[in-house]
Amino acid sequence: MQGVKAIEWIDGRVRLLDQTRLPQEEVYLDLEDHQQMAAAIREMRVRGAPLIGIAAAYGMALGARHIDASNMQDFLARLRQVAEDLSATRPTAVNLPWALKRMTLAAEAAADPQAASEALVAEALRIHQENTDADRRLGQHGAQFIPAGSGVLTHCNTGSLATGGYGTALGVIRAAWEQGKLSRVYASETRPLLQGARLTAWELTRDGIPATLIVEGAVGLLMRRPQAIACVIVGADRIAANGDVANKIGTYNLAVLAKEHAIPFYVAAPTSTIDLGSASGDQIPIEERPPEEVTTFAGAAVAPAGIEALNPAFDVTPHRYVSAIITERGIAREPYAEALSQLFQQEGVRHA
Amino acid sequence: MQGVKAIEWIDGRVRLLDQTRLPQEEVYLDLEDHQQMAAAIREMRVRGAPLIGIAAAYGMALGARHIDASNMQDFLARLRQVAEDLSATRPTAVNLPWALKRMTLAAEAAADPQAASEALVAEALRIHQENTDADRRLGQHGAQFIPAGSGVLTHCNTGSLATGGYGTALGVIRAAWEQGKLSRVYASETRPLLQGARLTAWELTRDGIPATLIVEGAVGLLMRRPQAIACVIVGADRIAANGDVANKIGTYNLAVLAKEHAIPFYVAAPTSTIDLGSASGDQIPIEERPPEEVTTFAGAAVAPAGIEALNPAFDVTPHRYVSAIITERGIAREPYAEALSQLFQQEGVRHA
Repeated sequence: MQGVKAIEWIDGRVRLLDQTRLPQEEVYLDLEDHQQMAAAIREMRVRGAPLIGIAAAYGMALGARHIDASNMQDFLARLRQVAEDLSATRPTAVNLPWALKRMTLAAEAAADPQAASEALVAEALRIHQENTDADRRLGQHGAQFIPAGSGVLTHCNTGSLATGGYGTALGVIRAAWEQGKLSRVYASETRPLLQGARLTAWELTRDGIPATLIVEGAVGLLMRRPQAIACVIVGADRIAANGDVANKIGTYNLAVLAKEHAIPFYVAAPTSTIDLGSASGDQIPIEERPPEEVTTFAGAAVAPAGIEALNPAFDVTPHRYVSAIITERGIAREPYAEALSQLFQQEGVRHA
Repeated sequence: MQGVKAIEWIDGRVRLLDQTRLPQEEVYLDLEDHQQMAAAIREMRVRGAPLIGIAAAYGMALGARHIDASNMQDFLARLRQVAEDLSATRPTAVNLPWALKRMTLAAEAAADPQAASEALVAEALRIHQENTDADRRLGQHGAQFIPAGSGVLTHCNTGSLATGGYGTALGVIRAAWEQGKLSRVYASETRPLLQGARLTAWELTRDGIPATLIVEGAVGLLMRRPQAIACVIVGADRIAANGDVANKIGTYNLAVLAKEHAIPFYVAAPTSTIDLGSASGDQIPIEERPPEEVTTFAGAAVAPAGIEALNPAFDVTPHRYVSAIITERGIAREPYAEALSQLFQQEGVRHA
């Protein structure tokens, strides 16, 4: 993915690739304040749990530039409002509150508003860089799970467009491809917003990785074909302390189908996606998006007027379906409560 | 579904509701020869296994009207070509060869070409009427499986638009609704051609049956919700002698998910959909349709240029996932080989 930057801090602005326009058009937006960033997150111009975290961090840095305060108390009060505006955009990905908390701590450590504003830019750049580094390590850790000559199924988009770096599940796929182990990626189109068709297929074709697009309905048929799919690998929007995984709607279907066909089901995510504060998936808030995303397709109505539609954006996959969780700090397996907690003990309290 | 006729024989022509234009437009096509009918079937302007059988029967009647033959040998030779043209349109639904065989037998019994041509019209009308009657009986047989106050999940379209009558799975749903037992229908949109969104949602809203449209990815989430879905009921394009069911792509996913959640999975189909000549699902030909149905929507690209796509139109659900097969002659259950064979023994050889 040379030449594509999903998000970039340039001279006090944020340049964002508008993901709603892909793959037809590569349109970049220049954002100047945190309200524009909140709108871009809400409208999914920028999406993917890790990238939402990075975007929120840059949103805080943008917001700080517009705060005119003479003392830290006023500055932090107004910064709290910026954080609340950004926090209210989307509820499920924990990377969003995680990034806002880190940014707030960085500001609070500063001596004055000017220093705080500079610290926020530095912290946002650091979060972005750490995510990119994490992707690389995560990809290397994960590639071991891809047997040579494998077909791999993935869902939604977990690539550069979801993380600002190398990708999570798609980072593992890229690493396996670089190691010559991968034969083909099956990308599910991922209704309703078609992130698989629009974004993952776009990244894979740009990288020259052999890829086949399928509708989600074709997953079971493919899994029944001998040797077609060696494993499923997906990202995550929030992982609970017990290993339950919230991810794009349709993920749980894939996990159940994988179990039925004795196909391993892997989740790849940075530790910033793990929420030890959620005991299980039951505590994870699931975003409901507008029914129009289901009743229309590419702007045109596909269902009759008056039909109701349900549009949950995520589902929860219970940990018993998850073969392993791949993070930048290593691999977690059952019992997940212990394994995930140990990942954080290695690092100390900062990420907990 | 008052006032909607999916197919109708009028004065030597066939009037067909063009299902590719729904739900935006109700456009009727007047077909004059069997080539137009073959094109309409291939392009899915008319679809649904039972309705494809009826359409093929009318196609034979249309074809016969254009045969200028002085003796039965010439007439039947040219009629064979008509049958081959119609047979070559779509491979999976067995109702198509079933209807062509019945029509051919009806022609062969006639004394001369003029009588044969008239016999073909009469036989096509009879096949249509029998299907409509079968739908009603099937609906009554099936309604017993819907518990009071139930939410029911269905897939693709199995209503008036699929059978020319009352519907198969949707006929069961209609019967349960008339009996006051049904609380809500969940209709999966059914990618890639969105028959659930375009056609089933259209039929349900016209009938005033409470319905919710969902993407296929949301099925697992709904099944995990207590009491949301009491059962799954789908149609079939071909049922093998052992009870394996070929149906719209995505059906097998639903069957696996239903099993995982201990939700009954029912198949509703007329006996003309049962193919005792296919020992198992492995013998059923699965149609592969153009990849563009996945990579484009309404003429617009939704995936990058150069991406491959796989577009199997059907999948096979092994009989062990099927709780019962509901037909107009009664219910079949495991062991299906015996139960299905008995349905035909009741009736004698005509349908076998």
